[in-house]
Amino acid sequence: MKNIEFVRPEEIEKRSFEIIQKELDEKGIVLPKDQAMITKRAIHTSADFDYAKTLTYSENAVNILKELIKNGADIVTDTNMALTGINKKVLASFGGEAHCFMADPDIASEAKKRGVTRASVSMEHASMIDKPVIFAVGNAPTALISIYELMTRTDWKPAFVIGVPVGFVNVEASKELFIASDVPCIINRGRKGGSNVAAAICNAVLYELGKERL
Amino acid sequence: MKNIEFVRPEEIEKRSFEIIQKELDEKGIVLPKDQAMITKRAIHTSADFDYAKTLTYSENAVNILKELIKNGADIVTDTNMALTGINKKVLASFGGEAHCFMADPDIASEAKKRGVTRASVSMEHASMIDKPVIFAVGNAPTALISIYELMTRTDWKPAFVIGVPVGFVNVEASKELFIASDVPCIINRGRKGGSNVAAAICNAVLYELGKERL
Repeated sequence: MKNIEFVRPEEIEKRSFEIIQKELDEKGIVLPKDQAMITKRAIHTSADFDYAKTLTYSENAVNILKELIKNGADIVTDTNMALTGINKKVLASFGGEAHCFMADPDIASEAKKRGVTRASVSMEHASMIDKPVIFAVGNAPTALISIYELMTRTDWKPAFVIGVPVGFVNVEASKELFIASDVPCIINRGRKGGSNVAAAICNAVLYELGKERL
Repeated sequence: MKNIEFVRPEEIEKRSFEIIQKELDEKGIVLPKDQAMITKRAIHTSADFDYAKTLTYSENAVNILKELIKNGADIVTDTNMALTGINKKVLASFGGEAHCFMADPDIASEAKKRGVTRASVSMEHASMIDKPVIFAVGNAPTALISIYELMTRTDWKPAFVIGVPVGFVNVEASKELFIASDVPCIINRGRKGGSNVAAAICNAVLYELGKERL
């Protein structure tokens, strides 16, 4: 078949990451060693090299995220697509669970009553989980804004924020709130992101921890 | 809060599409009328205006896709993330069902035995569904290649192909196979795509058909 090259299934991912690394080299982009596997997985899931420039890590973010997962932290996300994509098996092997409350009818009815988004109410609900929680926001800036409001209004703080909502309304500003905060976080500056990117960031860390354990 | 503007939940999407339209106008891009709602939803889900240039529609594609859904066609996708994202309720209201066979243990074991991808076996499996099927490929180029091989080897043909796999190995070539074919299709030229984009394309049509029906 025209221009189709046979690559063995188990080699497709490896080959993809080699191409990504080669193109990063050609562009003269050197990723910090600890961040590389996350940034490259975001590029792998989107075929978008912008992530090499826009993914923004707070100090020591990758280590903090790894330690949280190793110690059984939960992950809360704002989309069922990200929940589907996150490797829940590896997460569970460390004692963590992944949640998305967006389809919960109680969340929907409270959101409607209060005139706020379901994402916003979901995050408030998640803030009551009695263990460290990693927030992986892949869709709604209102989820990030809601986490930030809770932080400023109460003593509560998220253990970690993966902030990669996508879109056009308040997306950039909601991300800047966290870049300027002292919350450990990985944020994609600008408009881009998505549930696929949120899942990819979680999985990059989960796969690496899974391998270290073998 | 800094730079955060309050937008009522029910207005966020409307506002987003206004911004997308405004920026398309500024770029001098005029989308064909029937394609506009699909292309704009792909931009909405990715914040990536490249889709305005790379989404490629075969002749009369949007009408064909609408008619298929109206007549109860099923959708088969190559990722559980896309399956999660597709509005199955609206699809079901027309008599269609959405499927993803990727997590099926039989598919996995057959793929391993034959040294091919699960996506490839999934598509072969889907080709045996005894009604019109829309293939929505958001991840694996091997899914597209497998559909194409079936077409050339047998009399079978897919009713429609949404071909938006993402990545670096055979992605571009697998898409060109369909652009050059006589299969009704919507293909995103180049490396970009994803399960979010596959779901967005399905949903653009489902939402419009859902509204028309009200």
